[in-house]
Amino acid sequence: MAFQGVEHIGIAVKDLNSSIALFESLLGSLCYKIEIVDSEQVNTGFFQTGSAKIELLESTDPDSVIAKHIQKKGEGIHHIAFAVDDIEKEMKRLSEAGFVLLSEKPKMGADNKLVCFLHPKSTNQVLIELCMDKK
Amino acid sequence: MAFQGVEHIGIAVKDLNSSIALFESLLGSLCYKIEIVDSEQVNTGFFQTGSAKIELLESTDPDSVIAKHIQKKGEGIHHIAFAVDDIEKEMKRLSEAGFVLLSEKPKMGADNKLVCFLHPKSTNQVLIELCMDKK
Repeated sequence: MAFQGVEHIGIAVKDLNSSIALFESLLGSLCYKIEIVDSEQVNTGFFQTGSAKIELLESTDPDSVIAKHIQKKGEGIHHIAFAVDDIEKEMKRLSEAGFVLLSEKPKMGADNKLVCFLHPKSTNQVLIELCMDKK
Repeated sequence: MAFQGVEHIGIAVKDLNSSIALFESLLGSLCYKIEIVDSEQVNTGFFQTGSAKIELLESTDPDSVIAKHIQKKGEGIHHIAFAVDDIEKEMKRLSEAGFVLLSEKPKMGADNKLVCFLHPKSTNQVLIELCMDKK
């Protein structure tokens, strides 16, 4: 078992509309989807670049994880998401290897994915997301 | 013209050997190359995951960019590198679009690449690298 590759990179932004314009100019490609994820209190904008996506994350609530991230660290890269083919098996493998999972079961994320985050204290301060297409 | 995809994600680490062991366990794949890049005062370790690489960056000098990043922000994600097919054309396109380049010409980077960084103040605080295989 292993990760299948970088599915997306999540970037915390203060204002989704202006950041979408900025990333369209930067990447040379258009934002193809905007999606509100109520469970995470975020509004997201997606770009495709090669086989990976860029996911811009704007908070919809001052108490959200993204709002707190921006208050503490400013805008910028928030997490790396890796695609996995069996999220529950990968969660078990990583937990047994000493990584700290942030949920006991996979949760619904953006883009019709089942997701689980790993605590950055166990991963060199990199917030890692596992994600798998929901069947 | 556009970016061709995520070529690698650079992660600043304090100790390359222990982080290589950690990322081998995390990604479920082996570090396939260690390379010292004298010009950047870093020692690098590479992993392949799907079409992208993970590049671990350990400082070899207390005054290096990576040493200063770790002093200021701690370990963690340092930059995203995008593959481009013509780095000079992309540098011109981005400069004209208002992005701030950190060098006037491409520089030699790790992994036999020509590279150029964009100032994060123009990119939502994300340090962006353009890279192209040196011919």
